[in-house]
Formats: sequence, C-alpha cells, structure tokens
Amino acid sequence: MRTVEWETTSESVRMIDQRLLPAEFKIEVYREHWQIAQAIREMVVRGAPAIGASAAFGMALAAVRSSAQDLVSLQADLKSAAEVLQAARPTAVNLSWAVKRVLARTLETSGSLEELRAAVLQEAQRIADEDVAINQRMARNGAELIDDGDTIIHHCNTGALAAVDWGTALGVVRMAHEQGKRVHVLVDETRPRLQGARLTAWELEQYGIPYDIISDNAAGYFLSSGQAQKVFYGGDRMAANGDVANKIGSYMLALAAYDNQVPVYTVVPTSTIDLALASGDLIPIEERPAEEVLNIQAGGKPVAPQNATARNPAFDITPHRLLTGIVTEYGVIYPPFEENLAQAVHAEQHS
Amino acid sequence: MRTVEWETTSESVRMIDQRLLPAEFKIEVYREHWQIAQAIREMVVRGAPAIGASAAFGMALAAVRSSAQDLVSLQADLKSAAEVLQAARPTAVNLSWAVKRVLARTLETSGSLEELRAAVLQEAQRIADEDVAINQRMARNGAELIDDGDTIIHHCNTGALAAVDWGTALGVVRMAHEQGKRVHVLVDETRPRLQGARLTAWELEQYGIPYDIISDNAAGYFLSSGQAQKVFYGGDRMAANGDVANKIGSYMLALAAYDNQVPVYTVVPTSTIDLALASGDLIPIEERPAEEVLNIQAGGKPVAPQNATARNPAFDITPHRLLTGIVTEYGVIYPPFEENLAQAVHAEQHS
Repeated sequence: MRTVEWETTSESVRMIDQRLLPAEFKIEVYREHWQIAQAIREMVVRGAPAIGASAAFGMALAAVRSSAQDLVSLQADLKSAAEVLQAARPTAVNLSWAVKRVLARTLETSGSLEELRAAVLQEAQRIADEDVAINQRMARNGAELIDDGDTIIHHCNTGALAAVDWGTALGVVRMAHEQGKRVHVLVDETRPRLQGARLTAWELEQYGIPYDIISDNAAGYFLSSGQAQKVFYGGDRMAANGDVANKIGSYMLALAAYDNQVPVYTVVPTSTIDLALASGDLIPIEERPAEEVLNIQAGGKPVAPQNATARNPAFDITPHRLLTGIVTEYGVIYPPFEENLAQAVHAEQHS
Repeated sequence: MRTVEWETTSESVRMIDQRLLPAEFKIEVYREHWQIAQAIREMVVRGAPAIGASAAFGMALAAVRSSAQDLVSLQADLKSAAEVLQAARPTAVNLSWAVKRVLARTLETSGSLEELRAAVLQEAQRIADEDVAINQRMARNGAELIDDGDTIIHHCNTGALAAVDWGTALGVVRMAHEQGKRVHVLVDETRPRLQGARLTAWELEQYGIPYDIISDNAAGYFLSSGQAQKVFYGGDRMAANGDVANKIGSYMLALAAYDNQVPVYTVVPTSTIDLALASGDLIPIEERPAEEVLNIQAGGKPVAPQNATARNPAFDITPHRLLTGIVTEYGVIYPPFEENLAQAVHAEQHS
C-alpha cells in the first residue's frame, strides 16, 4: 500500500503508523482533518512529500465532513482547516505547498457544494499521484550519478515511507539497484528518532539492497578513510540560493563529505523549493520535545539520568556551498544554484 | 572513590563499573591481570587515562599473583602480562605507555622478588597519583580559555570517570565552574555507547553544572546558530603533528566548529602524545561489535530490524588543522603543533 491513501468507501485517510515500524505494521484510519494535523505533529507520518500529501487529504476530510450548507461557508471551513494543517510542523514547505494548492483550487471552483468537495478530493488525489510520478523521475535522474560498486551514505529516511510511494534520495538508490548497479548503503541511524535504523534499514531489506547501520557521528570516519563514494539525502525546504533544511545531522554529514571531496546530493521535488526565501537562515527550525532525545533505553533501562534535560532541534541547514548537485524531477541542478533553481521552479509552474 | 584504585588488604583492584551508570553504582573487584584486560576490552573502565592506570594496576596484580621463584621468571611473567594488557584495546596510547613504564621499572630493579613486586605496585600507584595531579594542572591551564557565560559542547565522557579522578576536558569545565565562571554544557550523547548521556550528564549533576543533552548530529545546528562558544574534548592518541584520535564523532564536531569559527580544544596529558607516529592516519582505529550500535531500544522494543547489520568504528581522527589549541599539563599548545608538541613531550621526559 501507499504510505498515505484515500479510502473511498468510508471517505477516510489510511496511513502506515511509522512510529511502530519495523516491530509492528499498523494502519491508522482518520476521519477528521485535525487528526491528520495531529498525526503529522506526532510523526505517525513523516517525510516532506508524505506530509504534503497527508495534508492535502486532510483538506479533503475537512471538505467531506464540513456541515456547511453553502459555498462560502465551505470555503471558510476549508480555510480554517488549512490553518490547522499548516501549523502542524513548521520546517517542511511541502505541507503548506500542498495545502495552498488545494485551497487555490477551491477558490476557483464556483459550482455546487458537491462539486467543490469533489474538486478538493480530486486535487488531493492528484498531489498524491503526482508525487509518485515525480519521485520516479527524480530517481531516474539521480541514478545516473551512481556508479556500479558505490557505497552511499544516506541520512534519515527518504524512501517510500517518506513519500506517497517510491521516495526521494532512497528512491534514487533503489533505482540504481534496479538498474543492476551494485550499491551498498551506510545507513545513518539518525538520532534522535532513528528513522534510519528503523525505516531505511527496513526498506532496504525489502528491496534486497545490502546495508550497514552506522552511528551518525561515524560518517566522518567512513568518508575520511575512503569507504564511501557518495552522500545522498532529501530536503524539507530549500531556499532560493540552494541552502536546504533537512533532518538534523545533514549539515555535519555534508561538511564531512565536502572535507573529503565526496559528492553530496540532495534529492528534492521542486515543491520543496521555496523561492520566497533568499537563504537558509530564514527557514524556521522546529524544536521538538526533549523526550525524543532522552527516551532511549539499553538493556531495558533508561540511559540518561532521571532528571536530565535535552535540546532537540529537528532540522539543520546545509549551506549550498557544500552541495554538489540538487536532484529534481527536471534533472540534476548544478551551481550556480540560484539561477538554475529558479529556472526549474519556473518550468514546474508552467508544466 | 577513584575510578580505579588498589585495595591493599586484599591486593586487588577496585573499579566502578561504568557500563551500569547512572542507573546503578557498582564496584567490581579484580584479582588477576587478565581480568583487567577483559574489563578494559568490555569497557567496565574507559577513558584513556583511566585505562592507563588500570593497566598499570593490572601489572601489579600480575606481580603479586605470579608464582615465580626468581627474578627472571617474575620478569618473564610481567612481560607476558604486559602483552595481554596492551592487546586489550588498540587506539589509546596511554595503555601501552603505562604498561611500558611499569615494565621498564621492573627491568631496572635488581633486588629481591619482594622488592620487584613492591616496585611494580609503587610505579602503578605513582601513575595513578600523577594522573590526578596532571589532570588538575591541565584543568587550570584549560580553564583560562573559558569565559564567563560560555556554552561549551563536549563529546563523550572525559570527567573523573575517564581518568583516575578529576578528568581531562570535563575537568577543565569543572575547574572553570569552581572558579565561579558561569558555564553551560551541551552534552553530546555520544553514540553508540552513550557515554555523554550516561556519564557526563551524571557527573555534571554531581558538580552542579547546568547542561542539556543533545544528539551528536545536532552540534552543527548549535554551532551555526551561535549558541555555542567553545568545543572541548579529550584524546586517546595524538600523533607528532597534532592529529588526534578521539571517540567517534569528534572529527565531525571539530569540522562543524571550524566551519563556524568556534574554537576547538583537545585536552590531553603528554602521555597521550605518541611522537613515534608522524600523523593521524597511522593510528590504529578499533572497530567494536555491531551489537553496540544495534542494541538500543525505545519503548522497550528494539529499534533496528531483527537481522540488521552495523559498522562500529570506535574512534576517528581529528586533523590538527581543525584544532585551535591542545591543553596539556605544561600549558596550552598552539600551532605549529609539530614543533611545540615535541618540546612539551621533551619537557615531560625531563621533569
């Protein structure tokens, strides 16, 4: 199944609960848009593209469940749902991109209530379907960068679970594997939520791609000792100059790769590019609960002292100077990023 | 009590079992040198200076327990014990430094068996006592680098537990605190064994120094957003040019500090400096069991897939170009490191 999908009969949204994988495969079913917002906040669903599609389906739930009796009231309900959904997580731009796209569609619809409801669902479904198609295009574009025999360091989870299906950076690795290239992945475990150890390792097993999990802080060792040839990760929001917000730790990984002349690629659909922001320091960085850092156990016992405190920024910014290239559905973008990114987004808006 | 100490009555070695802290405070007692080697390997005791003193006491155990009836046989037993102890862990040089120092003492002793046994114990005790004194000198030297109000990022554990007492890098922070400077520590949790979250957090609570635990991969965020003013860590072996092997993750931390013009200091006694090695790429890097990476749990359940594999290098090399200064018992050493380190080690050999 897809990471997130619309259930037609019951008019509800089904999602894989990613917090429980790989120990348990459980499907959550949501009937209200505010439940989707909560699921996004609590990371039942995560990954910028998956969040975008989920929020779009959240708009569809709001449309279906609204008791509005006229178009203006329904549009008002949808605007209010959009605010709730957009507030769920601040960093990834796909969330507001998807919500805005659905909202724009509702404002240009002047038919009946049922037509508006159908239009909202159709737009959400289109976002989800397009996401899969875009990911496959990115995967083909990115796979050309991978050589037979490469060992690739990957951060967080950017596979099928991070998107509606297929994935971004991990989709590239999977495509290279399906093309017959031998690849090995060093999987950053990705503290604190361990999306790498949990989800990426699990996905790679499904695809039959060999891997080893590593502590995030070990990437520098593998890079400086010549044991990794490429670094691939995704992106949650990219500024106009190519600076990219991604899962915490991406910046240090890029630094270590750069210091050893190992290429770093971020794989982002153009919906992740926010031309309204000139540079990465304008991207809001979400700080999540300290609990996420403190709640790991070893041997059944908590590790940190009982009253320990923690800080938990969820993202950091990779400056564009550290990126070798940006893989999008329109091809691989190279420096100068500012100029070339603008062209790609322009292409997207006219496609 | 000290991290490791000699128990006179029973002629045995007492150690705090650091694998169990902070949940449990347990003292282990060893009567045989090979048990000390095993305790070092299994990380009951860790931290370069603590390993050195433990190995020296291991030599004392070998001397006491040997059934040799003549000097030559006892010396042969000690040489054999030295080999067992030196093989316990490959990266930290303090281990072989301490063992060699005890061994040298035995070879220059020409008295009775009992005199030789006493000399071995005396040398081990002297190494332990000197370690405390040296750490306090380093702490005073390093504390001058810390300003009132500094937030300091610290990697692994380099406090009292990592040495016989007091510690290296964390000893510097503790000294600054005792001098009345307000300091805040961002504690790298230090995957995979979590010495930061376990031991450094626990020690800082004892000293009353405020701290927050962070994921190792979050240091870059705090450095690039101006929330940290200094980086301090220890060292397990330093080459003649200043390249230093330290706990895995130190290199990426130093890169992130360097990229943001934040000073990086390593705190090492001169016994950690190995002038026989020209540069860091000659330092052997221990790879420890994959299990250490894979055995963390969250919510009582393992995180990684059941058959997951992992790589687990325990150290990495920080190239000297990333270091601002090296804090030793003879003062803070600045570039050019090669020249200035040789002078410091020379001073040590003649002190």
